[in-house]
Amino acid sequence: MNYDGGKFLITGANGFVASYFIEYLNSKQPAALILGVDTLEEPNCGYKNFQYLQLNLMDKAALSNVLKNFMPDYIVHLASVSSVSKSWQEPVESFQNNTNIFLNLIESIRELNIKTRILSVGSSEEYGEYSESEMPLKEHYELHPNNPYSVARVAQELLSSLYAKSYGLDIVITRSFNHMGPRQKDIFVIPSFIKQLVGIADNSQAGVINTGNIEVVRDFLDVRDVVEIYYNLLFKGISGEVYNVCSGTGLKLKEIIAMIVSLLNIDVHINVDKTRVRPNETMVITGDNSKIKACTGWEQRFSLEQTLSDMIDFQRKNRDEKEASIHRPLLSQ
Amino acid sequence: MNYDGGKFLITGANGFVASYFIEYLNSKQPAALILGVDTLEEPNCGYKNFQYLQLNLMDKAALSNVLKNFMPDYIVHLASVSSVSKSWQEPVESFQNNTNIFLNLIESIRELNIKTRILSVGSSEEYGEYSESEMPLKEHYELHPNNPYSVARVAQELLSSLYAKSYGLDIVITRSFNHMGPRQKDIFVIPSFIKQLVGIADNSQAGVINTGNIEVVRDFLDVRDVVEIYYNLLFKGISGEVYNVCSGTGLKLKEIIAMIVSLLNIDVHINVDKTRVRPNETMVITGDNSKIKACTGWEQRFSLEQTLSDMIDFQRKNRDEKEASIHRPLLSQ
Repeated sequence: MNYDGGKFLITGANGFVASYFIEYLNSKQPAALILGVDTLEEPNCGYKNFQYLQLNLMDKAALSNVLKNFMPDYIVHLASVSSVSKSWQEPVESFQNNTNIFLNLIESIRELNIKTRILSVGSSEEYGEYSESEMPLKEHYELHPNNPYSVARVAQELLSSLYAKSYGLDIVITRSFNHMGPRQKDIFVIPSFIKQLVGIADNSQAGVINTGNIEVVRDFLDVRDVVEIYYNLLFKGISGEVYNVCSGTGLKLKEIIAMIVSLLNIDVHINVDKTRVRPNETMVITGDNSKIKACTGWEQRFSLEQTLSDMIDFQRKNRDEKEASIHRPLLSQ
Repeated sequence: MNYDGGKFLITGANGFVASYFIEYLNSKQPAALILGVDTLEEPNCGYKNFQYLQLNLMDKAALSNVLKNFMPDYIVHLASVSSVSKSWQEPVESFQNNTNIFLNLIESIRELNIKTRILSVGSSEEYGEYSESEMPLKEHYELHPNNPYSVARVAQELLSSLYAKSYGLDIVITRSFNHMGPRQKDIFVIPSFIKQLVGIADNSQAGVINTGNIEVVRDFLDVRDVVEIYYNLLFKGISGEVYNVCSGTGLKLKEIIAMIVSLLNIDVHINVDKTRVRPNETMVITGDNSKIKACTGWEQRFSLEQTLSDMIDFQRKNRDEKEASIHRPLLSQ
C-alpha cells in the first residue's frame, strides 16, 4: 500500500503535545496515515486516518514488531516521563522511560534497516545551571544536567547524535523549552494560575491566588507553535543537528499573572507560598531560537495574549463540562 | 558483626582488574571482609576472607537484597561489558550492562540509605575525538563519546555526579585508560603481541608477527598500578570528582613490540594487516595524571620493562599449564 501523505508513527500519542501534533498533521496532510502508540489501553481522542496501538516501548520485541508492520516514513517520538520532580522520586523509572525506550526505538530501526526520519524530542533541562548573563541558551553550550530527568535526556541526545553520525540513522534532535496551551493539565504552572484566576473571576473562589516564586523568568511557547516547529523539522531539519524549540523571549511568571488578571478584568491578591519557593531555583532561563528560525523559516503564530485567552476559554468550557457531567446523574433520576 | 578492615563489595568480581584488586586489598587489609559478585556461577579464584555470590546487577531487587544483607563500607564497581567493538554490535546490551546496572546500584544505595563509598570506574573512551595537539587529555575537557560503549560510560558518569551532588552519595569517579598485565586475555592488543612473540621465541611459530596499525600511541598502565590507584581513591578521592587513571606517557605500539622483541632476544618480521587498520582511528591518546598524583600521592611502580617481562613469564607458564592439562589424560592412562 502507498499513502500519498506518508506514514507517521507518534509515540506518547495520548499526551498533550501529541494531540496537537496529530491535529496539525491532519490539517497539513489529510492523506497521511497516522499510527499512535502509548501505554494506555484506549486513546483519549479520535482523529482522522488514525490508528492506535497500546504499546510499552520498554518491550523492544513488541516495538520492533509494530515498526516492521507499519514501516513508518516519519517517527515523532513524544513518549517520555517528563516530570523533573517525579524523576527525583523515581530515577530508575525516569531513566528507563526516557533513555531506554528511545534506545529501543532507534536500535529497532537500525536492526530492521527501516528508512525513516525520527524526531528526537529533548528538553531545555539538559543545559543545567547557567547564569543570567549567559542567557539566552544556545545549542553549542555545554550540557550540565542537574536532575535525573535531564541526565536521561542528555543520554538520549548522545544516543541520537551517535546513531545519526555512526549508523547513518536520520534523526533530528530538539531541546524543547516550556510549553503552554489549552488542554494542558493544571499540575503545570500556567494552567494552575488560569484555574485559580478563572475561579476568582467567576466568584467561586476568594480573590487570592497561591503561587510559588513568581519572580522566575522562563521561555514559554504555545503548544500549537511547538507542533508547527516539530512538523517543519521533520521536513527541513538536518540529521544529527540539535535545535532549541523556544520563543526566545523571557517571561516573568508575575507578568503572565498580570496579563491573565487583565484579560479577566479582576482584582487579586497574590499569596507567595514560601514553602513552594525552591532555594536554588534558576531565576532566568531563556533560549536562543535563531537556529530553528533559520532552518525552518518558522515565525511565532500565537501571542501571549492569544494563548492565555484560549487557555481561559478552555478552562471555563472544561469546568462547565465537568459540572454538567457531575450533575447529569441527578438530572437523569 | 564488626570487621576491622571494613566490608568491601566488588562487582565484576570475576574480571581481570577485580582479581588484582582483591589480591591487593588482601595484602593491605588482611582483616577486610570481601564480597564479590558477578554473573558467573562460580568465581575463578579463591581469595582470603572472600565470599562470592552469583548476581546479575540488572536484577535490582536481588541487588538491593545483597546490599541490605552485606551493608558494604566500600563498593568497587568493576562490572561492565567494556568492549567497544561489542558495543557496536549490541548497543542495548552495552548500555544496560554499563549505565543501567550502575543506576540500579546507586539507586539501591540511596533507597536503603547505606553509608558507603563507591568507586565508579569509567573510561578514557568518554573523551572521544581530540587532536594530537590537545593531548594529554585533562579531566576538565568536554566529553564527545563516539561509540555506544562510551555513551554508556558518559551516562554513568553523569549519574555519578548527580547522585554525589544532589543526593549526597559518596562516589569517586574515574576515567581509566588502557590496562595491561599478566592474566589479561589475548583478545587485547599487548597480550596478543606477547603470545605471538613468545611463540616465535620458543620456535613454535615462524618469525612473523601479525598486527593492526602499530603507529598508534596509547597510554598503558600496569593493572597492578591501576588497582593501587583504585585502592587509594577509596580513601583519598573526593566525592563527585573525576580522576584520569593513566601513566601520563604515550607508548607507540611499535615501541612496545620492540621492547618485547628485545626482552625475548629474537628477530621478527612485522606484518601489518591492512584489513585491521581502521581508517578513522585516533593516532594519539594520552592522559594527564597530575590530578590523581596530587590527590593520592601515587607514583607508578611498574616500569614497561617489568610489566612486559611479567606478561612474558605468565604467557609461558600459562601455555605450559595448558599443555600439561591437554596431555594429562594421556599420561594418566
